Amino acid sequence: MKKVLIDCDPGIDDALALALAAGSADDIDLVGITTVGGNVDVEFTTANALALREFLRLGDVPVTPGSAGALLRRTVRATDVHGPTGLGDVVLPAPSRGPSEGHAVDFIVETLRAAPGEITLVAVGPLTNIALAVRREPRIVEWARDFVIMGGSYTRGNHNPAAEFNMLADPEAAAIVFEAGWTVKMFGLDVTLTAAVTSQVLDRMRPLGRLSDLLVPAAQYYGVVSAEGGPAIHDAVAVAYVLRPSLFTCVPAVVKVETAGEYTRGMTVTDFRVDARQANALVATAMDVPAFWDLVLGTYEKLSARLT
Amino acid sequence: MKKVLIDCDPGIDDALALALAAGSADDIDLVGITTVGGNVDVEFTTANALALREFLRLGDVPVTPGSAGALLRRTVRATDVHGPTGLGDVVLPAPSRGPSEGHAVDFIVETLRAAPGEITLVAVGPLTNIALAVRREPRIVEWARDFVIMGGSYTRGNHNPAAEFNMLADPEAAAIVFEAGWTVKMFGLDVTLTAAVTSQVLDRMRPLGRLSDLLVPAAQYYGVVSAEGGPAIHDAVAVAYVLRPSLFTCVPAVVKVETAGEYTRGMTVTDFRVDARQANALVATAMDVPAFWDLVLGTYEKLSARLT
Amino acid sequence: MKKVLIDCDPGIDDALALALAAGSADDIDLVGITTVGGNVDVEFTTANALALREFLRLGDVPVTPGSAGALLRRTVRATDVHGPTGLGDVVLPAPSRGPSEGHAVDFIVETLRAAPGEITLVAVGPLTNIALAVRREPRIVEWARDFVIMGGSYTRGNHNPAAEFNMLADPEAAAIVFEAGWTVKMFGLDVTLTAAVTSQVLDRMRPLGRLSDLLVPAAQYYGVVSAEGGPAIHDAVAVAYVLRPSLFTCVPAVVKVETAGEYTRGMTVTDFRVDARQANALVATAMDVPAFWDLVLGTYEKLSARLT
Amino acid sequence: MKKVLIDCDPGIDDALALALAAGSADDIDLVGITTVGGNVDVEFTTANALALREFLRLGDVPVTPGSAGALLRRTVRATDVHGPTGLGDVVLPAPSRGPSEGHAVDFIVETLRAAPGEITLVAVGPLTNIALAVRREPRIVEWARDFVIMGGSYTRGNHNPAAEFNMLADPEAAAIVFEAGWTVKMFGLDVTLTAAVTSQVLDRMRPLGRLSDLLVPAAQYYGVVSAEGGPAIHDAVAVAYVLRPSLFTCVPAVVKVETAGEYTRGMTVTDFRVDARQANALVATAMDVPAFWDLVLGTYEKLSARLT
Repeated sequence: MKKVLIDCDPGIDDALALALAAGSADDIDLVGITTVGGNVDVEFTTANALALREFLRLGDVPVTPGSAGALLRRTVRATDVHGPTGLGDVVLPAPSRGPSEGHAVDFIVETLRAAPGEITLVAVGPLTNIALAVRREPRIVEWARDFVIMGGSYTRGNHNPAAEFNMLADPEAAAIVFEAGWTVKMFGLDVTLTAAVTSQVLDRMRPLGRLSDLLVPAAQYYGVVSAEGGPAIHDAVAVAYVLRPSLFTCVPAVVKVETAGEYTRGMTVTDFRVDARQANALVATAMDVPAFWDLVLGTYEKLSARLT
Repeated sequence: MKKVLIDCDPGIDDALALALAAGSADDIDLVGITTVGGNVDVEFTTANALALREFLRLGDVPVTPGSAGALLRRTVRATDVHGPTGLGDVVLPAPSRGPSEGHAVDFIVETLRAAPGEITLVAVGPLTNIALAVRREPRIVEWARDFVIMGGSYTRGNHNPAAEFNMLADPEAAAIVFEAGWTVKMFGLDVTLTAAVTSQVLDRMRPLGRLSDLLVPAAQYYGVVSAEGGPAIHDAVAVAYVLRPSLFTCVPAVVKVETAGEYTRGMTVTDFRVDARQANALVATAMDVPAFWDLVLGTYEKLSARLT
Repeated sequence: MKKVLIDCDPGIDDALALALAAGSADDIDLVGITTVGGNVDVEFTTANALALREFLRLGDVPVTPGSAGALLRRTVRATDVHGPTGLGDVVLPAPSRGPSEGHAVDFIVETLRAAPGEITLVAVGPLTNIALAVRREPRIVEWARDFVIMGGSYTRGNHNPAAEFNMLADPEAAAIVFEAGWTVKMFGLDVTLTAAVTSQVLDRMRPLGRLSDLLVPAAQYYGVVSAEGGPAIHDAVAVAYVLRPSLFTCVPAVVKVETAGEYTRGMTVTDFRVDARQANALVATAMDVPAFWDLVLGTYEKLSARLT
Repeated sequence: MKKVLIDCDPGIDDALALALAAGSADDIDLVGITTVGGNVDVEFTTANALALREFLRLGDVPVTPGSAGALLRRTVRATDVHGPTGLGDVVLPAPSRGPSEGHAVDFIVETLRAAPGEITLVAVGPLTNIALAVRREPRIVEWARDFVIMGGSYTRGNHNPAAEFNMLADPEAAAIVFEAGWTVKMFGLDVTLTAAVTSQVLDRMRPLGRLSDLLVPAAQYYGVVSAEGGPAIHDAVAVAYVLRPSLFTCVPAVVKVETAGEYTRGMTVTDFRVDARQANALVATAMDVPAFWDLVLGTYEKLSARLT
């Protein structure tokens, strides 16, 4: 049973990642959800997180809103991919409860402080909250049991040829986080693009009752509009790693985040030709795709049963 | 009576600024001191702030430690100017009490939240704490009654030809702070260098009893080692403005902080050719130097009487 | 008698600089004029140089056209200051002869090669031609007797708060030229802005017969539209230095040209706190303004007599 | 019969590229070799080009030396890969004739001017000469029949994770060249790394008589020291394209050369998601490797017969 704190910006694939966590209640003890502006504004990512908490029957898991925009520069959004409110065509029931008091940065710091060595921190949006938390309390780097992100790439970007969206959305935050002293488990486009929702996958999502009301239109919306090379459920990959690390090949690397380039801001420049002791990241380079879908769809089936 | 919160990195001129505030108890209600790494490491700036609190009889004013290093890049220090522990040759009695619990960023946010429109925030070190506070709670920009900094320059730098030390020490933080939406009252080298301790000024400091144990060696140390064009008590200028705005000429300007240059990182690029409504700063361009010293030395005399 | 090659982008003040050289035939042997795109496009600067050659009776001095645009980035123009064709309201007779064959870069290299140690190179536009010549034949740095520019500033810019126009128009070229190994005699805005055409100066230009047809409308146009702080005849200052160095105070400095900044591209970052042996520039810091105008207006009077 | 001008920095793989051209006398009319500082200093690359001209019996093909260093910044070298003098362990007979008068930049400009539409320009070193030629005479872009480079990558670098050596050695030159208005045929590491000398290839080189004295130690030296992922004869790929375009898959793209990044200077940021009419490059994405070796080794065999 792993204690997990998810920092996210739902976002279609964030929703599917939260569904994966929600369906894994035997393996994941979700201790909190924090939100950040990213795919859409933080007001929407927070509202979506609240709606998802109830739709997915996540109970009392606190949802704490965080940073509205990037640390330093103008904010970019991905409303072209996720729709104006972040969940495409999906309509969830309005949530009955609001967010927690306080701020995501404080929630992250205090949650990790209260249980050093126990919490796996999973960040699947821009890294603004995490960077602020690191600067506010550098010891969270030691307190985290594990730190897992969806973001970056060692080959090519999606938002532009060099940069992946989450990194581009706050390159300075990403630079702070990668240089903070921990080993970032990085699940970038290199593997997440292999997690594409095929028509066979979609067919297995359709019979999932109420849950299919979320999964199917989300995946379809995404599939039509995504310029990212496929309706890949990027963020769910990071949660899948927490559940089943053995699905992945991860390689030590030194990752530097470019903040100064004219065409390369937000690029995760990845050097694999390093001694493992110098590495600041474990970068996923391959995923067992059939096993991934077995895990994800199996979990969704279990969850579906609980939701009805 | 103005409520003032001072964020500082003592630092010789920070010490003289705190002495100015301490001697102005009729005009300034010092509600807190927060520290930041800058001239020297935050452990030393905090220790110095604690020692100064007792030496200057500041009573229960909370001293809350803050950020150790710059937001993004490697930290620079000014130990060449301020000595390895930050106060040159000055030896103050060891403090009997320690710092407050918590972090400067939270203290700043909560203090401003508790008294919107009442607190004048004065920052005389690198702007790391202020930037983190702005990102953590953007509303402090509205809650602050006034925001005054020592830093920057519209002519030339001191640490290098382009940049003043406080800005160079954390350019990204400075950029965040100048773009936060408030009007920064900027007291840069352009005026602070006119606040140089001449031999006449030093002669007026010598007879100040116990207080002269701080003032005289501080000013002398600074005078010998300062590469800044004179033993100018930069930080005291910002406090003097809070006490007596009429001593200063301030001009509206748009100030941009360069974060990308090869030779110009940390430069405060100042454009005076702007409509006052576009301005993000009021930049001090002149100071009544004799009246400044009358204010400062008169205040030190009053303080000296209290300290004996 | 100094042999002088002028690289320019006429341009109103370029015209006044050429007039100063033309009137100094006892002191200056003008061996060539090369043109560069700058204030206006190179087609116009070349046409203007050709018209000025005949109007100023410069005889057979070759006019050789050079680079159209900046080395690396998009070109900026100053048509707001110099009018769409570069000479404001001035209308000169159409020239009867065209430019020389060949390219300015080759002309510069071959002219210096043919008379090593003899030619003073004066550049009063963007440094594109000079940079290309330096890279094409690095030995011109040794062959030049002297290298004098109008450009840069150690205080503030004109085109923006940080950069002077000639440097901003091609920062990479300027960086190459300042790092080429010679001592650049730099006449920047710091002194050239003191060469402003006052109404008294204008009154002394009016009676100069045909020459006044050039001088007066040029100075007036410039005076009305210049956003540069006055109708200062910048480029003439560089030629005045060649004629009478004793008018100027010049200080050794290390000058770096910023090419990377967001707000500071083209800034000449000037460090005077250097050993003279490290210096790559002699930077003019003061000019005897009355003596400057005596020289300039006296020369114009002599020239006026010749032109009638 | 294609007229070809090769700009190079021999360099081991440059030598093998020149050998490929030399053996293709029925298809390639080599009109000139120009040299540039790159793998090693220009004195060595020129000396190597001269030695190769005689060793490869290239007759009167002019060898014209060019630029010593990068346009703007400090020069990088690849002596770790090519040995201190550029040809590893290979010892060629000293050449009996020296280089041509004049400079590579002029040679390139004049050669293209003299035969517009006829010359294929092949650049396999840093692009300094080409950039200077483009700026000196922009019309070469129209005069060139074709422009082919070895350099760049749309996946990963060799000299560092982001940049290929030729581009890193002069990023500003590369930026100028890619933005000059022609379609750059780019053969980057993506395909050139597939041209690795295997032991089977080496076995076919051994029996080639005198020519094997060049080929075998060159390939072996390279194979041992190359950190580039294999002893790939990069530069020969560009010549192979001139000989047999059908071996390659080339895709239209917009290529931007990063000049500003902290970790990405010299990166060729390649966007394939463009309309072909916007493209400034045709980027090779695949090569028929067996056919490539058949071409190269077959040509070497023919050449070997001629050299004995």
